Amino acid sequence: MSDLVTRINQTLDQEAPALARTLSPLGRRVVMPAGIPVQAREARAAAYNGTIGQLTDGHGGALTLPTMDRVLRSLGDEDRNRAFLYSPVAGITELRERWRRWQRRTLEAGAEASHPSSLPLVTCGLSHSLSILADLFGGEGRTVIAPAPYWGNYNHVFTTRTGARILSAPAFVDGRYHSAFAEAAVAADPELGEDEPVLVILNLPSNPGGYSATVDERAEIRASLVRLAQQRPVMVICDDAYAGLVYEADIPRESMFWDLVGQHPQLTPVKVDGSTKEFTFFGGRVGFLTFPYEPESPAAKALESKVMGMVRSTVGSPVASSQAILLQALREESIEEEIEAVRQLLERRYQVLREALDQTHGDLLLPQPFNSGSFALLQLAPTLGLDAERVRKHLLDEESTGLISIGRDYLRIAHCSVDVTELPELVRRLERGVSHLAGRGVGA
Amino acid sequence: MSDLVTRINQTLDQEAPALARTLSPLGRRVVMPAGIPVQAREARAAAYNGTIGQLTDGHGGALTLPTMDRVLRSLGDEDRNRAFLYSPVAGITELRERWRRWQRRTLEAGAEASHPSSLPLVTCGLSHSLSILADLFGGEGRTVIAPAPYWGNYNHVFTTRTGARILSAPAFVDGRYHSAFAEAAVAADPELGEDEPVLVILNLPSNPGGYSATVDERAEIRASLVRLAQQRPVMVICDDAYAGLVYEADIPRESMFWDLVGQHPQLTPVKVDGSTKEFTFFGGRVGFLTFPYEPESPAAKALESKVMGMVRSTVGSPVASSQAILLQALREESIEEEIEAVRQLLERRYQVLREALDQTHGDLLLPQPFNSGSFALLQLAPTLGLDAERVRKHLLDEESTGLISIGRDYLRIAHCSVDVTELPELVRRLERGVSHLAGRGVGA
Repeated sequence: MSDLVTRINQTLDQEAPALARTLSPLGRRVVMPAGIPVQAREARAAAYNGTIGQLTDGHGGALTLPTMDRVLRSLGDEDRNRAFLYSPVAGITELRERWRRWQRRTLEAGAEASHPSSLPLVTCGLSHSLSILADLFGGEGRTVIAPAPYWGNYNHVFTTRTGARILSAPAFVDGRYHSAFAEAAVAADPELGEDEPVLVILNLPSNPGGYSATVDERAEIRASLVRLAQQRPVMVICDDAYAGLVYEADIPRESMFWDLVGQHPQLTPVKVDGSTKEFTFFGGRVGFLTFPYEPESPAAKALESKVMGMVRSTVGSPVASSQAILLQALREESIEEEIEAVRQLLERRYQVLREALDQTHGDLLLPQPFNSGSFALLQLAPTLGLDAERVRKHLLDEESTGLISIGRDYLRIAHCSVDVTELPELVRRLERGVSHLAGRGVGA
Repeated sequence: MSDLVTRINQTLDQEAPALARTLSPLGRRVVMPAGIPVQAREARAAAYNGTIGQLTDGHGGALTLPTMDRVLRSLGDEDRNRAFLYSPVAGITELRERWRRWQRRTLEAGAEASHPSSLPLVTCGLSHSLSILADLFGGEGRTVIAPAPYWGNYNHVFTTRTGARILSAPAFVDGRYHSAFAEAAVAADPELGEDEPVLVILNLPSNPGGYSATVDERAEIRASLVRLAQQRPVMVICDDAYAGLVYEADIPRESMFWDLVGQHPQLTPVKVDGSTKEFTFFGGRVGFLTFPYEPESPAAKALESKVMGMVRSTVGSPVASSQAILLQALREESIEEEIEAVRQLLERRYQVLREALDQTHGDLLLPQPFNSGSFALLQLAPTLGLDAERVRKHLLDEESTGLISIGRDYLRIAHCSVDVTELPELVRRLERGVSHLAGRGVGA
């Protein structure tokens, strides 16, 4: 191993020992290499700079094709150059700073110092953030805990790619959120070593559940994770994809990352967020990774090198054009109102869907608790003995209605992409389809 | 392993046995999972479609923030929706079709049938294409051959991430391109098993060399790789990052991928290209991966699943906004002329740099053969005993001139990002700096 790798690993061993013990073999050997990007950065002030292999006008400006230029012309000159040229591997600095401010806008005045967070690193979307965490902290035999049902791509990112295994416990027990799901999963597993590190995925608002924890449940989740961290290193991946999309007044909108920072030395929350849902920019692929350390701290700098090493070796650099567009948005005073307007539109869809589901027959469909995000999750009444995949196909073929089947028992409705006026009819068709397959005559 | 994985592996075992033997453990177990994207695709025609978790206006249109919309407004409505919403995991179909036509535009009329190529898969830039190949075909102990000096990120992508080892042989011997570099590297290596698969990286025009092969050298390279494939499976990764940037009339501009298709059953060329340099869209991160099989062939479809599995589990989906912009460019009749105009501008820089280098002292600097791409590579005269990194730092500190040091002996000039009028002075300063460190009094 190079001196640089050794030094960075030593920093993590010292500054973040629980996290360091969680590194995979790949996670230990990867850092940002001292290659061309580093030499180019050093040459930035040189009068004659022949370091970077990107085509420019010779003065640092982008050399663009007129056709491509036209579609990005409404950016200012500086942002237009940023959009066409390579992004720094860690992301555009102003964007990282503004995103950090955006993340921290809800912290109360006195809570600033007790809630450290690093300068977010830019990735190619939230899946990229997750896959970098999987490479750095997953790997053969490592245990990842997620409440079920969970997003299917977790299997793919953690298990297929790195060989980690996913342990699970139900997200709801007796219709109530299962705040101690991670402790329950560990307790039920005979294979896990006594003080072996675990990763825990906390995805609130959830996919596919559309659920966010109440104030009381948050306190319970935190207490449970602290108890778990008393036994072993626990990294909590806060998958905040749906951050802010909360539709009930008494449900907190803030990320649980802030509840977990500084709660126990063996408890390391990591924040995964981005512009995909929060700024409705699905095609842009701008994600972030944020650690619970002050921006200039040794642990933050060491982790920055680790993550940049992974970004460099997986995608070269993050998407500059999308960052330039997102940066423009973050500079606008009005952006918070624009986002609130989207939330209100989705809240209306949520309410209409909720009303429609409230009128369905409980012996056919059991809507799971939902209050946020993009989805509602419905369990098929167990007494019917119906398979969710069969129901999905029937709805598609006979009711021209597309839903997602999850496991044997669940159907997911994405209300975020259905017009509010069509949601009642969608639920009517769903109920009619289930009723038909169950051999019942529900009037609809 | 699931039935789907088994079936896809069986297809590859049958249809592309040499390539199948090259798969890593990860490469064998990964496919595109039959999850939400597949179910959503099936529901596309449904009257009520509640499958996809992206925010829309309820009728498939993007729900955009006004500020973000403004900067992408000059795209037509359809392309604007494409830019804001998720891309298909394999990439936007029209873009893939148009890129395939773009790749094949130089094939002669009679050569179409004998040169099969798949519908290119979209990635997040050429590094992402390389890292997917590294995941699928690299891995612990696998051998990757590249002529030296080569781009440093190959080490990172193949060795650090997957544990493969890079074998090398000099790119130039006695001032002439070393067409048999791969055979030479294999012959010099005692560790490689008799019929063990190898990967070979063919990067022409080259980075850092700025070199493209002549007509005769191409024939020699091809013959050498065919001989190697008579011993063992050989996958040739054609890293065509600098495709088309050729500045001498007698040097072919086409990718060597076309020279290698169908030459031997154990020889599998794979084309890695994208819009980064070819369309000077560095910040957009649109790369492609193309295999030597007809678009609808079983091998092409099986590899499509493998690559989509990797895209899904590393970045979720490729960048839609950049694809929408690139698609716009590919639709324009004038785009080939726009690209030719960029090539001519770079050709002028190349010529001026070449003239300036021709006048440097041969006992200080030995320019390596170059005729294309973005760079010139200079060897420090061995008799001087100078270290390239020391020269780089001196040039930065004393001459305000930024170059890249490569290994102990080489400096790389990126003429692609220096104004043509400044190149002679850049070379003067370089020579003065080297002369100073060597303790000579070269007039400059």
